[in-house]
Amino acid sequence: MSDQQQNQLWGGRFSESTDAFVQEFTASVGFDRRMYRQDIQGSQAHATMLAEAGVLTNDERDAIIQGLDEIRAEIEAGQFQWSVALEDVHMNIEARLTDKIGITGKKLHTGRSRNDQVATDIRLWLRDEIALIDGEMTRLMTGLLDLAEREAATIMPGFTHLQTAQPVTFGHHLLAWFEMLKRDRERLRDCRKRVNRMPLGAAALAGTTYPILRERTCELLGFDGVCENSLDAVSDRDFAIEFCALTALCVTHLSRISEELVLWTSAQFNFIDLPDRFCTGSSIMPQKKNPDVPELVRGKTGRVNGHLIALLTLMKSQPLAYNKDNQEDKEPLYDAVDTLAGCLRAFADMIPALEPNREVMREAARRGFATATDLADYLVRKGIAFRDSHEIVGKAVAHGVDQKKDLSEMSLSELRQFSDQIDEDVFEVLTLEGSVSARNHIGGTAPDQVRAAVARGREAIGG
Amino acid sequence: MSDQQQNQLWGGRFSESTDAFVQEFTASVGFDRRMYRQDIQGSQAHATMLAEAGVLTNDERDAIIQGLDEIRAEIEAGQFQWSVALEDVHMNIEARLTDKIGITGKKLHTGRSRNDQVATDIRLWLRDEIALIDGEMTRLMTGLLDLAEREAATIMPGFTHLQTAQPVTFGHHLLAWFEMLKRDRERLRDCRKRVNRMPLGAAALAGTTYPILRERTCELLGFDGVCENSLDAVSDRDFAIEFCALTALCVTHLSRISEELVLWTSAQFNFIDLPDRFCTGSSIMPQKKNPDVPELVRGKTGRVNGHLIALLTLMKSQPLAYNKDNQEDKEPLYDAVDTLAGCLRAFADMIPALEPNREVMREAARRGFATATDLADYLVRKGIAFRDSHEIVGKAVAHGVDQKKDLSEMSLSELRQFSDQIDEDVFEVLTLEGSVSARNHIGGTAPDQVRAAVARGREAIGG
Amino acid sequence: MSDQQQNQLWGGRFSESTDAFVQEFTASVGFDRRMYRQDIQGSQAHATMLAEAGVLTNDERDAIIQGLDEIRAEIEAGQFQWSVALEDVHMNIEARLTDKIGITGKKLHTGRSRNDQVATDIRLWLRDEIALIDGEMTRLMTGLLDLAEREAATIMPGFTHLQTAQPVTFGHHLLAWFEMLKRDRERLRDCRKRVNRMPLGAAALAGTTYPILRERTCELLGFDGVCENSLDAVSDRDFAIEFCALTALCVTHLSRISEELVLWTSAQFNFIDLPDRFCTGSSIMPQKKNPDVPELVRGKTGRVNGHLIALLTLMKSQPLAYNKDNQEDKEPLYDAVDTLAGCLRAFADMIPALEPNREVMREAARRGFATATDLADYLVRKGIAFRDSHEIVGKAVAHGVDQKKDLSEMSLSELRQFSDQIDEDVFEVLTLEGSVSARNHIGGTAPDQVRAAVARGREAIGG
Amino acid sequence: MSDQQQNQLWGGRFSESTDAFVQEFTASVGFDRRMYRQDIQGSQAHATMLAEAGVLTNDERDAIIQGLDEIRAEIEAGQFQWSVALEDVHMNIEARLTDKIGITGKKLHTGRSRNDQVATDIRLWLRDEIALIDGEMTRLMTGLLDLAEREAATIMPGFTHLQTAQPVTFGHHLLAWFEMLKRDRERLRDCRKRVNRMPLGAAALAGTTYPILRERTCELLGFDGVCENSLDAVSDRDFAIEFCALTALCVTHLSRISEELVLWTSAQFNFIDLPDRFCTGSSIMPQKKNPDVPELVRGKTGRVNGHLIALLTLMKSQPLAYNKDNQEDKEPLYDAVDTLAGCLRAFADMIPALEPNREVMREAARRGFATATDLADYLVRKGIAFRDSHEIVGKAVAHGVDQKKDLSEMSLSELRQFSDQIDEDVFEVLTLEGSVSARNHIGGTAPDQVRAAVARGREAIGG
Repeated sequence: MSDQQQNQLWGGRFSESTDAFVQEFTASVGFDRRMYRQDIQGSQAHATMLAEAGVLTNDERDAIIQGLDEIRAEIEAGQFQWSVALEDVHMNIEARLTDKIGITGKKLHTGRSRNDQVATDIRLWLRDEIALIDGEMTRLMTGLLDLAEREAATIMPGFTHLQTAQPVTFGHHLLAWFEMLKRDRERLRDCRKRVNRMPLGAAALAGTTYPILRERTCELLGFDGVCENSLDAVSDRDFAIEFCALTALCVTHLSRISEELVLWTSAQFNFIDLPDRFCTGSSIMPQKKNPDVPELVRGKTGRVNGHLIALLTLMKSQPLAYNKDNQEDKEPLYDAVDTLAGCLRAFADMIPALEPNREVMREAARRGFATATDLADYLVRKGIAFRDSHEIVGKAVAHGVDQKKDLSEMSLSELRQFSDQIDEDVFEVLTLEGSVSARNHIGGTAPDQVRAAVARGREAIGG
Repeated sequence: MSDQQQNQLWGGRFSESTDAFVQEFTASVGFDRRMYRQDIQGSQAHATMLAEAGVLTNDERDAIIQGLDEIRAEIEAGQFQWSVALEDVHMNIEARLTDKIGITGKKLHTGRSRNDQVATDIRLWLRDEIALIDGEMTRLMTGLLDLAEREAATIMPGFTHLQTAQPVTFGHHLLAWFEMLKRDRERLRDCRKRVNRMPLGAAALAGTTYPILRERTCELLGFDGVCENSLDAVSDRDFAIEFCALTALCVTHLSRISEELVLWTSAQFNFIDLPDRFCTGSSIMPQKKNPDVPELVRGKTGRVNGHLIALLTLMKSQPLAYNKDNQEDKEPLYDAVDTLAGCLRAFADMIPALEPNREVMREAARRGFATATDLADYLVRKGIAFRDSHEIVGKAVAHGVDQKKDLSEMSLSELRQFSDQIDEDVFEVLTLEGSVSARNHIGGTAPDQVRAAVARGREAIGG
Repeated sequence: MSDQQQNQLWGGRFSESTDAFVQEFTASVGFDRRMYRQDIQGSQAHATMLAEAGVLTNDERDAIIQGLDEIRAEIEAGQFQWSVALEDVHMNIEARLTDKIGITGKKLHTGRSRNDQVATDIRLWLRDEIALIDGEMTRLMTGLLDLAEREAATIMPGFTHLQTAQPVTFGHHLLAWFEMLKRDRERLRDCRKRVNRMPLGAAALAGTTYPILRERTCELLGFDGVCENSLDAVSDRDFAIEFCALTALCVTHLSRISEELVLWTSAQFNFIDLPDRFCTGSSIMPQKKNPDVPELVRGKTGRVNGHLIALLTLMKSQPLAYNKDNQEDKEPLYDAVDTLAGCLRAFADMIPALEPNREVMREAARRGFATATDLADYLVRKGIAFRDSHEIVGKAVAHGVDQKKDLSEMSLSELRQFSDQIDEDVFEVLTLEGSVSARNHIGGTAPDQVRAAVARGREAIGG
Repeated sequence: MSDQQQNQLWGGRFSESTDAFVQEFTASVGFDRRMYRQDIQGSQAHATMLAEAGVLTNDERDAIIQGLDEIRAEIEAGQFQWSVALEDVHMNIEARLTDKIGITGKKLHTGRSRNDQVATDIRLWLRDEIALIDGEMTRLMTGLLDLAEREAATIMPGFTHLQTAQPVTFGHHLLAWFEMLKRDRERLRDCRKRVNRMPLGAAALAGTTYPILRERTCELLGFDGVCENSLDAVSDRDFAIEFCALTALCVTHLSRISEELVLWTSAQFNFIDLPDRFCTGSSIMPQKKNPDVPELVRGKTGRVNGHLIALLTLMKSQPLAYNKDNQEDKEPLYDAVDTLAGCLRAFADMIPALEPNREVMREAARRGFATATDLADYLVRKGIAFRDSHEIVGKAVAHGVDQKKDLSEMSLSELRQFSDQIDEDVFEVLTLEGSVSARNHIGGTAPDQVRAAVARGREAIGG
């Protein structure tokens, strides 16, 4: 591709060619060609509209649409010659179109600019990716619901400060993860509303003098509406930032789940097993089986936080309208999309394969004074103010730490040293099943509540 | 406040007092007392519910509500003694309540924990702040619409790459700012849906054994619904992160507007005047009048981006449920709220006072070959393909740069050197008014479109 | 303080007073008064130099120095009236000086501007804080060396991927923490070189026409040298960014240590005990003893990462020289300093008080096939290629997982199923002491190496 | 490459193969192969040491070194088959070595692990890149010095708050940029000290039982010293974070320079021309010549800030020693290196080609009351206190704004309305040359100072 071809596009007023390194440094075709399908889709809708508006003849329109169909096939067959001299995906495709259909190809760019074209391409592309991500998210959420239902009555210690706090059910814990993802999916759908607006028609920055029909192109491309101000349309990158923000939050959620999976597969916790196919080994230590997938997902939080900051920094104090800076929007967004999709897919595959070690979990809950709160509540029911019963149980626990005995292992007389309100019926409240079943209100850990929450969850993601 | 009082709250199992520096280092009362009103509001609703559930008598409830009313009055009168030894706002208020009403005060904490209490307080607090911010945002948007309507036909140069691109109207430019804020307000309202959920009832992490009525408390506090999983309820800080994300984006928008205001008040642009009351001077240079408000707002982008990263980093890989780390959520959120509210208020005050220098703007648009695209479009209408007309006009511009002449200053014969399709009627398309009026479609810069957009904008923010 | 007083400072060209909200929004005195001591120190040196340069008489100099001494005393006694109308610490102090000593006070500002004054103040302030931080860092490092020496032969499992990898000594693990801090201290000292340069003399941006003696002021204030370009001197905030970067890295290190402390105090690991005085309890769960200090320090990573981003964002694309944006540099820097100092202090207090549960650590190392690598190395010494011995041991481990037996628990004949190269002497290499002692090279975990590293460490921090 | 080959490396204890998507998701060979040269360099030094230590025979060593030489040639000829099943660059190269030289290839991994190997590779790689970056940085700094020397007496307006402040010389302004880069180079070199330490010998995490000679490998590879703790050696990524921090700061500096170049090439400023070869045009607006290179560099600030946050987030609260998360360190670091190198190269090419429009700059300085401070200083020399002279000049400026007259355009009698201390000699101080020449101290804008600073700068970068 010669410089002459380049000059056909904007070189009229220039007296020297672009410096070779500058050409490479400023070109975007290396990454924006990823959107070739959306670029063609947008151009075909634009041509259709231009014909309806009388700017193109029907024959011209047909030649353009046919030529673009062929170019898409060439690209997908790996036969397209991408040229850095032609800067970007738009000019590469347009130059090829003109090669193929002659002067008519040059008419396609009527009434638009690369500024509104690229903004349209990237929104179409992101909309497509959001659909895929929504699907993976839903698949993962379904896996969580299935597992939670199965483990609705499996007892494990609930932690605060990574110290044993109170017994909970494993199903309840899984539903906490589900709730995080439920909010992520809501945010994804709220974001999609703002992604799915059409910049096309803004032209370079001010609109165009051609009699374009924006609502028609909007309809052809399935956008929910047009961007209502041309200066904003070409300079707005909110949709990319908002998407990266929800991605950062979703991957943060996955990092929390990952942290728990890494803890739980340690020899010290041993709460779950991960199948070998989600793990790898060590080149030096023959015994190792490492939880690579959760570790890697946890590490990917950095990457997506970084992309969010990249885009916010990018837009800081940019004057209107389009500036070259904006070319830097794509790589962070692409990688955020790929990272989120990959992490969700890996989790959606892995979560249903988790194997809880139910006996280990139960034993861990049994120790650690997990039912101390139940004892305090028991004393309240006997008429003692909560703050006082808390103090009484605190002393009993101090005694237990000293004697290496859990509350349920103390005799009645031992317990009565701390309060004479304690009677034989105390041992019921000190059981694990009694403890979890008693938390029987919406949001509580009782197995019946877990099952009800699963049912509500199924309804929520069906919607 | 003695250590003994502290020990009443959780000291039963402890054999030594907290280290003095640790007490100060870990206390939150220095900042969380900001939520005293919401803490009391939540406690009063909790007491009301406990009485309905039969856990408190009506007399106990009345004593609690009355005591808390008095405490609020004490705080607002500056008569309340805050104690670092009592760690946080919750324990400070509860200890004072017990001082006032005796043992009944200790019953208030029945069926809840500080974990769900603080999560409830901060959501109530944020909900209140969102209402104020929504109001300031709307006030600023109204100011923009008013100014845009007044300046619907004022011509200025539109820029891309900070190079003169095409003429636009000042009203159109102002509406680009309006569009940014319109999306910000949408995001604020989407965020509010997720803020306004009630964690209360999650207790420490697993729910409670008391017969609480969560839906009733929810109704009393005006929440849209309850958090459906107790582990998630106490550990979720999504609402704070989502709020900081939209704040970072909104302040980024304000930074873009600020950048333009700083440029436009420079001697070189001189497009607008800012009244003296929004500026300050120099201690050394007597002639200076500095656009402090936009500069400072631009600088505040850093702060809010920082808070967003602070909260995302905070939550990365935290295992469930509550961890002490979460105490770090408040200061970034508070400052994000204050910064956003302050910036919006300053802008809402300042924007209506902008004085455009219309003649300077117009003259800047007249120069700089702003109507070159119009000439290219003219040639297209004469039957030349766009890419060729672009080349022709590029050469005419190169000639103009060389001769220091704008296109509209060339003679017809001079113009015809570049294409013999150019006729006398070309001078109409080279006028500024012709250029802007011709971009007469939705989103375009034509004065009529600006006025129509203002009307749509008024409707949008009324909703 | 009236507006008239304000106008004395820069109001000559202004026709209206600053808007009340703008005054509050743009004032910095609320936070920059923290540097009052450095502001006075800088002013006294400036006055001394001005007298030497003949710009002030000796009497004027003495009046200024005396007046400033009195003002410092007033501030420290809490008797100084700070005024928001006077904007910042500089103008507050100068106005008070003029109140006290009359017209001579007005001469102090000769040959300087607030732009170079504030840059000088903040560098002096940061230099003072760096000295304190260096001291806390060194105290913590000493604590680590002492503990590492004591625990040089205490065996624990070394982890990769949180899976048991190989036995290490606790002393060796502590020295890994020491290495992180050693680099942090190097970075702190490298940063100090660039902090300790004097902007004073740059005046507003271009230098001054008065016959100032910058080298003299530099000497009086203990700076290493002058900033060599006036435009850079007033607009440079690199020192604050560099300090925040090293702080973010240091607190990240502390977050890693914290994570391990939180893990190790869990019931599942139970490797160490933290004294009660570094922990707090729960308002609802009487048994809880939470590792608050490490959790909180871990959470503070967010805050310092945020401040770093705040400052980088702040400086992005700011044109020279000083802009009002720069006023936003102080709060992030202050909080970074306070956070780092507080975290280091808390750790320097806490680390020496850690109590390892040596038997639990040892038992954890004994299980988990920690000596599998030693067996592989043993086979290599018998002439088997490492990759093959790795495969052999991998199979023995799979057998052990299946049979719930560690390698050291298998009989010789059982082991020989996997390789007939295994003889009776294998059991020596499968002991924990044998394993750690064999890693006896610089950087290895052998107790002798740990003791040697402690000795090198003591020398390093003495320097 | 079959799974069987994979299993040779760590599969002994595994009962099922890695999931296909997991294999792809967790593999690093797609990006870590970039370090093939350093991987081979490290292996060759390791083999040399192993032979000296008696672990390999000389023949084995020679076979390994020769085999690796051939593999490097294969890679550079594009003939190497990279395999995702072999996970990473290390295992790909080692498997090929074993293909080539048989069982001896398997011995290369003796006494090391992939954990210390990858840490060594990346430090070697970064050290090489730092050398290139140092070169580009120095080239750019030299360009600035040359240009500053040429423009030492060219007058332009100095700005604060983007308002005309005082006249400065263009050379002085260029040297402010130079100072930023001088600090960047210092930081780069400080960072290199900490990059250039050798982890090799740490093995998986605890050191090795083989009689390795770490100091010998260290010497062979040109490291400044060994990492002194094996756990730290494999888990430390400080060097990458420190490099990204200095990169973020350096690109922030370039963003500030870029902002000024974008401003100065606008029609409104018109202070400089950028040659066409550093600019591009518009596909729609034929007149456009856009300053793409500075805009793009400005935009790249986002990317590097993002990478810094990515790495800090990555390391937050990771327990020792190596975790899979760390695999995420490479892509941000690579891109930071490429971005910094590219931006510096583009600037080093472009800066010497800047063409100042000296007359425009001078005229801009002449207007805008740039010498108001000089007038105030003049009055001080006549015995008026600075604060009073500031007030007098402020009033003269207000009059000038009203009358659209600069100070130098007022008559003596007009000026004397404001102070009768003003005499005929005032007009000397109101000239631009007088103003800049009077700031004649180190760091001041006087042409002689600029020339002296250039001389000092040449010496500094020679060192």
